[in-house]
Amino acid sequence: MTSDSQTPLEKTTAAPRVLIVGAGAVGAFYGALLHRGGATVEVVARSDAEVVRAEGYRIDSPLGDLSFRPTAVYETVDAAATGGGGGPDYLVLAVKVLDDLDRAALIAPAVGSATAIVLIENGIDIEAPIAAAFPQAPLISGIAFVGARRTAPGCVQHQAFGRLVLGDYPRGIGPASHRFAALLEAGGMAGKLTDEVVTERWRKCVWNAAFNPMSVLAGGADTRRLLAGDEPLLRSLMQEVCDVAAAEGHPLPEPLVSASLASTRDMPAYKTSMALDFLAGRPLETEAILGNVVRAAERHTTPVPHLRTLYGLLRLRAAAQAA
Amino acid sequence: MTSDSQTPLEKTTAAPRVLIVGAGAVGAFYGALLHRGGATVEVVARSDAEVVRAEGYRIDSPLGDLSFRPTAVYETVDAAATGGGGGPDYLVLAVKVLDDLDRAALIAPAVGSATAIVLIENGIDIEAPIAAAFPQAPLISGIAFVGARRTAPGCVQHQAFGRLVLGDYPRGIGPASHRFAALLEAGGMAGKLTDEVVTERWRKCVWNAAFNPMSVLAGGADTRRLLAGDEPLLRSLMQEVCDVAAAEGHPLPEPLVSASLASTRDMPAYKTSMALDFLAGRPLETEAILGNVVRAAERHTTPVPHLRTLYGLLRLRAAAQAA
Repeated sequence: MTSDSQTPLEKTTAAPRVLIVGAGAVGAFYGALLHRGGATVEVVARSDAEVVRAEGYRIDSPLGDLSFRPTAVYETVDAAATGGGGGPDYLVLAVKVLDDLDRAALIAPAVGSATAIVLIENGIDIEAPIAAAFPQAPLISGIAFVGARRTAPGCVQHQAFGRLVLGDYPRGIGPASHRFAALLEAGGMAGKLTDEVVTERWRKCVWNAAFNPMSVLAGGADTRRLLAGDEPLLRSLMQEVCDVAAAEGHPLPEPLVSASLASTRDMPAYKTSMALDFLAGRPLETEAILGNVVRAAERHTTPVPHLRTLYGLLRLRAAAQAA
Repeated sequence: MTSDSQTPLEKTTAAPRVLIVGAGAVGAFYGALLHRGGATVEVVARSDAEVVRAEGYRIDSPLGDLSFRPTAVYETVDAAATGGGGGPDYLVLAVKVLDDLDRAALIAPAVGSATAIVLIENGIDIEAPIAAAFPQAPLISGIAFVGARRTAPGCVQHQAFGRLVLGDYPRGIGPASHRFAALLEAGGMAGKLTDEVVTERWRKCVWNAAFNPMSVLAGGADTRRLLAGDEPLLRSLMQEVCDVAAAEGHPLPEPLVSASLASTRDMPAYKTSMALDFLAGRPLETEAILGNVVRAAERHTTPVPHLRTLYGLLRLRAAAQAA
């Protein structure tokens, strides 16, 4: 953390410029931290743009009132386009990773020659299309451990946690990652830098690929119901994710599955983000969270029959929901 | 087929007496055939008793009008009790096999010293509790291939098929099975006698254990949607059922899975009985159709990871439905 970031309001001219694409609950939360940390924060916020332009974000949080007014609010990425200039210092992409969304094409208009791209998104193998489309741009992969939800247009409730694990994709910690983590820390929530961010992505996926789809297929069940109903199945699913991670060159420590189950058991019952999306009729991140794991397993011929069954059923269920 | 059964109406005094317990669509359909075949048919029909007593069953069928009036209609099995006598010649049990129903206790009041028990029910290992409770009674295991549904109290629409595969449990074809098949044939639909009825039960289970739970977890999807969505998963599930059947001493011919998938592909799209139960909020035969297969696999340590995943999810889904 530099002295600059400790006195952000006095240094507006030198403030890094951040553009957040997809400012839902998670995007707005990290936008608020970056704003507190001294960044100039602009957002692309489709449905909430009008409200946010008029009133800013209202963000209730255990950290205090994180409400803030972005410097600029755009309805589209085109409206935030660089016009050929250097672009924002950071473009933070915090949209859901869905099949029918070309994320690289989405952000292209706003990626300038000086822009580092920051992904705050769930899933496995989600960096590759961005890295391929912008080979020159520093690419920071971020994994959010945060409970936050949008309660109304422009209104976000930060419920718990908030840690962002981040590092360069595919590995290492470059200067852009360091500066971004320092901004977060100045904003009140230290980021955790890692030089093996893909390993960290697999670590989170061990939980996500099991609990998220299972909660949907169980009709929107919460964590406690899943654990009480079939902990052995959760364990089998999580172990298969570990097997795939190892085959991909990201071995995870042996007791991860048991520790993860134990910590979930100790938490209050809660519904996964995919269960909430499902219950609200929103599209699911099926491929990012589960499909890409199954495809990685197929590349290595790692047996994942439990995950494969879960995946087939989740796709069928999602198709029925969409129909 | 005997000459007696060809002229049933002239032989009422010698007519075998049949009591049907659980006269829903399937029970009423076979009751109608037995009636046409010359049997005296009594029924225990809880919710429909009043209507059936007043008006009989109205049964529309491709076979013609199968409507009939049972000789007696009871609301409970107790009301049909033997009072210590020989009891009916056949007690046909056609209720769903559900966890919270003790089927042996249900029928006990009406099983007499001369009664053969006929099960017309789905699932695996469903005979054992009945065989244990009534070791003296001939036990006929029947597997119905019939499309029939209850359209209103006392009203049944027979849609298609109707074959009953039957034989003595655990194997063989005794005189009671022969006579029962002859009654059905006299009624217009030949039963198919088998001396390995448990093998036949496994054969039907290959389809049922895959399609029924999958249709529920896919949100009530029909056969065509399941095949289009994930035929490889259906194939894996069906192959695992074959593996368990073989471990149980009931090897099934190699091309069964492919042939079964092909014939389903050739049929019009339809919803499984479990999907219909699920969509109507009725309890599911989870254990009879899938749980007992998984437990058989565990006895033989036959790997069934796809079935095991399906089973865990179906139990969770059913629990959510019931909640």
